[in-house]
Amino acid sequence: MLKFFFSPGSCALASRIALEEAGAEYEAVRLNFAANEQRKPEYLKINPKGRVPALVTDRGILTETPAILAFVAQSFPKARLAPLDDPFGFARVQAFNSYLCSTVHVAHAHRMRGYRWADDPVALADMKRKVPQTVGECYELIEREMIQGPWVMGEAYTIGDPYLFTLARWLKGDGIDVARFPKIHDHMRRMQERPAVKNSLTGETA
Amino acid sequence: MLKFFFSPGSCALASRIALEEAGAEYEAVRLNFAANEQRKPEYLKINPKGRVPALVTDRGILTETPAILAFVAQSFPKARLAPLDDPFGFARVQAFNSYLCSTVHVAHAHRMRGYRWADDPVALADMKRKVPQTVGECYELIEREMIQGPWVMGEAYTIGDPYLFTLARWLKGDGIDVARFPKIHDHMRRMQERPAVKNSLTGETA
Repeated sequence: MLKFFFSPGSCALASRIALEEAGAEYEAVRLNFAANEQRKPEYLKINPKGRVPALVTDRGILTETPAILAFVAQSFPKARLAPLDDPFGFARVQAFNSYLCSTVHVAHAHRMRGYRWADDPVALADMKRKVPQTVGECYELIEREMIQGPWVMGEAYTIGDPYLFTLARWLKGDGIDVARFPKIHDHMRRMQERPAVKNSLTGETA
Repeated sequence: MLKFFFSPGSCALASRIALEEAGAEYEAVRLNFAANEQRKPEYLKINPKGRVPALVTDRGILTETPAILAFVAQSFPKARLAPLDDPFGFARVQAFNSYLCSTVHVAHAHRMRGYRWADDPVALADMKRKVPQTVGECYELIEREMIQGPWVMGEAYTIGDPYLFTLARWLKGDGIDVARFPKIHDHMRRMQERPAVKNSLTGETA
């Protein structure tokens, strides 16, 4: 059975929702970031990066949200979580997820995890100050150019949807009102109604 | 025919090498970043993010290196650039590329493009100062935990290889001697011997 390592409130939620949508059997293992469990030797054996998510399969361990999302889509084709037989359609979903991973998540991380890239308190404060602007610009682009509606890729729900939902939940903490982005706001509301999302959110706090 | 937008010295090189390895027919279009061509209205119609790479196909436009790399691998299956029929193997390649995109490239970008995340000159200087440490830690992890040798994924050359090669070329500019990492150093040398790499590098400067 799959074993899924996560921490509440992290980007791991996206992969968990995908596992739920796929009807996958998995054991969820919660790491306590406050106790720095992700840096303990036993977890570093699972993921030397000291991050979540990590998915333990019978073939080995997978990390990185875009890779896990595509793996779930390909491993559970009946769930139709991506256009698996269409390289162009699949690449469109992957391009969206790659943007979330390398630009949107990174912009957000400069608020609380600026120490990854700087040490000077002046630098950390300046990074934090700029987050509403940089994150806001990302979501303006998503709203204007990327989200097709009703789902990210149009009529078909894909692995882009749980990932957008997961990161958009951080908007409030970044000082941004999601109501500025009507399509994304509507997307969040419809996501919250999905059983897979409800189960995943309950699982985060259980 | 495919149309490929790049700028010399950028991460677009990875996708170009993959196109060459695949034997794809494509037209390469060079953008002059010094003249800020990537921000001009005609290019923003192609890629609203104002970045490279962008790949124009007969179905539409693709951006984001990991997505383009997987697209090339899936569109030219005879080139065997990824384990296409093995979701786990494919995910391992994608996890590697996702790490390069969201962690390694991002760490590097804090040297010259810190203005993306801060404005204060003190912050920009502090980010720049920390780059040899953060980028160095990324490559230590790649050397120790990720690169299997002789290629990233072991015996099979995949779309992880041109991407690693492309980013590792930035090490010197980041103040890091690649000789610290024997496997990566050896990988770079073998990459440079491949005709697809030679063609791509010639194409960057031609």
